[in-house]
Amino acid sequence: GTQPLFILGPCVIESEEFIWEVAERLGAIANSLRLKWVFKASYDKANRSAISSYRGLGVKDGCRILAEIGRKLGVPVTTDVHSPEEAKIAAEHIDLLQIPAFLSRQTDLILTAGETGRAVNVKKGQFMAPWDVKNIAEKLISTGCENFLFTERGTTFGYQNLVTDMRSLYWMRELGYRVIFDATHSVQRPGGLGTTTGGDGKLAPVLARAAVAAGCDGVFMETHPNPAKAFSDGPNQVPMSDIAMVVEKLRRIHTLVTEEA
Amino acid sequence: GTQPLFILGPCVIESEEFIWEVAERLGAIANSLRLKWVFKASYDKANRSAISSYRGLGVKDGCRILAEIGRKLGVPVTTDVHSPEEAKIAAEHIDLLQIPAFLSRQTDLILTAGETGRAVNVKKGQFMAPWDVKNIAEKLISTGCENFLFTERGTTFGYQNLVTDMRSLYWMRELGYRVIFDATHSVQRPGGLGTTTGGDGKLAPVLARAAVAAGCDGVFMETHPNPAKAFSDGPNQVPMSDIAMVVEKLRRIHTLVTEEA
Amino acid sequence: GTQPLFILGPCVIESEEFIWEVAERLGAIANSLRLKWVFKASYDKANRSAISSYRGLGVKDGCRILAEIGRKLGVPVTTDVHSPEEAKIAAEHIDLLQIPAFLSRQTDLILTAGETGRAVNVKKGQFMAPWDVKNIAEKLISTGCENFLFTERGTTFGYQNLVTDMRSLYWMRELGYRVIFDATHSVQRPGGLGTTTGGDGKLAPVLARAAVAAGCDGVFMETHPNPAKAFSDGPNQVPMSDIAMVVEKLRRIHTLVTEEA
Amino acid sequence: GTQPLFILGPCVIESEEFIWEVAERLGAIANSLRLKWVFKASYDKANRSAISSYRGLGVKDGCRILAEIGRKLGVPVTTDVHSPEEAKIAAEHIDLLQIPAFLSRQTDLILTAGETGRAVNVKKGQFMAPWDVKNIAEKLISTGCENFLFTERGTTFGYQNLVTDMRSLYWMRELGYRVIFDATHSVQRPGGLGTTTGGDGKLAPVLARAAVAAGCDGVFMETHPNPAKAFSDGPNQVPMSDIAMVVEKLRRIHTLVTEEA
Repeated sequence: GTQPLFILGPCVIESEEFIWEVAERLGAIANSLRLKWVFKASYDKANRSAISSYRGLGVKDGCRILAEIGRKLGVPVTTDVHSPEEAKIAAEHIDLLQIPAFLSRQTDLILTAGETGRAVNVKKGQFMAPWDVKNIAEKLISTGCENFLFTERGTTFGYQNLVTDMRSLYWMRELGYRVIFDATHSVQRPGGLGTTTGGDGKLAPVLARAAVAAGCDGVFMETHPNPAKAFSDGPNQVPMSDIAMVVEKLRRIHTLVTEEA
Repeated sequence: GTQPLFILGPCVIESEEFIWEVAERLGAIANSLRLKWVFKASYDKANRSAISSYRGLGVKDGCRILAEIGRKLGVPVTTDVHSPEEAKIAAEHIDLLQIPAFLSRQTDLILTAGETGRAVNVKKGQFMAPWDVKNIAEKLISTGCENFLFTERGTTFGYQNLVTDMRSLYWMRELGYRVIFDATHSVQRPGGLGTTTGGDGKLAPVLARAAVAAGCDGVFMETHPNPAKAFSDGPNQVPMSDIAMVVEKLRRIHTLVTEEA
Repeated sequence: GTQPLFILGPCVIESEEFIWEVAERLGAIANSLRLKWVFKASYDKANRSAISSYRGLGVKDGCRILAEIGRKLGVPVTTDVHSPEEAKIAAEHIDLLQIPAFLSRQTDLILTAGETGRAVNVKKGQFMAPWDVKNIAEKLISTGCENFLFTERGTTFGYQNLVTDMRSLYWMRELGYRVIFDATHSVQRPGGLGTTTGGDGKLAPVLARAAVAAGCDGVFMETHPNPAKAFSDGPNQVPMSDIAMVVEKLRRIHTLVTEEA
Repeated sequence: GTQPLFILGPCVIESEEFIWEVAERLGAIANSLRLKWVFKASYDKANRSAISSYRGLGVKDGCRILAEIGRKLGVPVTTDVHSPEEAKIAAEHIDLLQIPAFLSRQTDLILTAGETGRAVNVKKGQFMAPWDVKNIAEKLISTGCENFLFTERGTTFGYQNLVTDMRSLYWMRELGYRVIFDATHSVQRPGGLGTTTGGDGKLAPVLARAAVAAGCDGVFMETHPNPAKAFSDGPNQVPMSDIAMVVEKLRRIHTLVTEEA
């Protein structure tokens, strides 16, 4: 009933071997905790700060591998899509299509994702007010899509910084939407390391606890066996060795907050 | 050991009768919950938006009444002071001197408060970065004051809005300070109602839960028997009929977050 | 030598007849003022707030018409492109490819635009610090593109508001880039009218004067024969009847600022 | 008629000898340019970041010296006051009482300044929306004060940064107020150097040009014979050797902007 949803996985598919290893370790954790979860990984980092950054495997191979992982582990999978074409390809394999925050205002991408019949998770743009997601919802609903989520991932706050407004979770849910909190990208420091995006991974569980206590329907958290060696967003990812403990704490806060007074 | 501190009371002493009634009701609640708490009320609202707004009883009568309440209920009391002169007068009666956020950079006020020997609670300015409270701490420490708190009450976020950066609680505590979260003023909409400051009281418990889950040492929350009729900051105050429930939930989150993993 | 560049035109091609009429009126003004200018119009508004908003003619017809206008008037033309495919099509006809602000971090779009050999004008994202355009410049330079501009169009400032940091113009030019100030979109109030984006057209000349006085290489300004009836961004557009006066004032400020001390 | 007002002087009275030297050099410049100006210096820096920072001479000596300078040079003088008591003392000597931005919401200070009969210049708080200065104006008007100014000095923008919203000048003037732009403090980086406030003095003339071009009634600019050796706010002050050139350029922009179209 009130179990929160966890969207977990590494930032990017660093290799086929890597992604299987991570998925199987996460699957074992999720099973032991009886977690309601979705496995996440990106096949392409299409908006890296710098041209020299690692991009990924591409949509076809990436989605094929994710689908195999989903079947093997019996878990829904999600990935981010960057164009209508990619949305169509991904939808053949992927349960939950994720729309990146920078692209959350691109009407064609939203409509195509909605038309695939898959569930859609739209990351709220860093430039967007919470109540403005209503326009995105209406674009999705116009395609017949009823199974969609919004993800809070922080708002532009001066230069090279994001702030998470916890009121946003409340306001979006008050509009009737299901809301995920992205603990990983909310602690980014955009452009903060010159040619890569910095951040502070030890703050991800802090903000995740805050979001669950404020009230949300789930938590998105990137995790990596060795964040310091991650190809992308390393500084913000939670070490896999911490995930069980972090998730369990969040689930207990969720229970406390959602139980009858 | 790890009990959180609650700073509770109405925004302003509306009258002697009023403040006694509120204090006794809160005292009864606090006793029944065995709450670690401080009673708070202002004797003067020195920075009201508009000239026509109610100001209060003044420092002498206000502090005398608060001291009587403290003795009768066996609870420490706090109030905000606006000048070195007021700090000295208040310190004769008041256990915890509160420095308003707008005045948090006024060196003479900080130093005089520190010199009184009383505990001091400095509200972090809406214009201040979390790590900049270090300079205030050093001013206090230079007077021999060792018992001080910092209170997070939101940061300027565009016009007529504040945002609470939950990372701020973490960063200030990492510097070694004890940190209170002010749930009432963090939901203010400064100037948002033209000649008074607006806000959204139903969000105060939401942000308080988030802050306690993120990690803080206590919560400041204004409460009123009838917020709609409050002389000041009505829109943000929590109805007294809800306080026991709100506080109890916060205390349980605090226990969950601070217990051993 | 130091003539500023003006990028002028309506927001969107409302119809073939409409765009010719606007272009010819602007052409006459530009000739009489001996203006250094580029004609601008969009063929598609790909990121409208609401699904019901007018989108435009599409890339092929739009670019064909713009190219005809350019030839007839002897003026370079520009339009915004939203995908690598569109960039390629547009590049057959269009002198200056404009990258929308929301898409300024999409690496494939930047690279493809750079590879076309056309000049490229990247609008700095509302979520981006001025010095972070360096990463975009390096993506463009990697394709051999040397003729590119950055356009300042405001930064996210709280909710449903943008602020123009005039220091941004200085900082981007200090990095060695040519910088355009977009007076039209800098006065937007994103989402501010519910399902459309609001704004304040009378502020566009105010900010344009400020930007030219601070120091920039040109001004982007949308103009419409009747802003109140514009299909898109009406509230921010400058009436065509004011354009000659506004542009002439900006040019005189530019002369004053760039002349020898 | 439309001559802009310049408020010029060093940040703080470093010594009696120092302030006379600066005033006489500025007086000579002002005479040669036939400048409409006010001489400014602070007798106390009451809100320094750190306790170890230099504070100043104090209100009595400071105001006495400023008054002597004003008489000798035939120029009005201004200084900032931090309490009702200081406002009364200063008003015996000082033509224009300046209210610091952090104190712009302190009702008693505003009212006392208004009651002195002197002109009053209120710096808009870094936490305040432009249209909220109306409440301050009404406090002043309630005392019979009709000769007051508002000064824009930047708005909190993320952490340790300020942004100047040039629309603010327009909005405050539209309300009927006279508006000064403070070029020195608008380029501050609050707390940015650890225990002092950083900034970027070379940006002060850039923003001053922008503000005059946007439209304002005057410019406040701190100047120092040797900014690198200034006791306070050194990084933001304009070298005195540049002042004539900077002021002259601003005056020419002002003429251009205010002349008939």
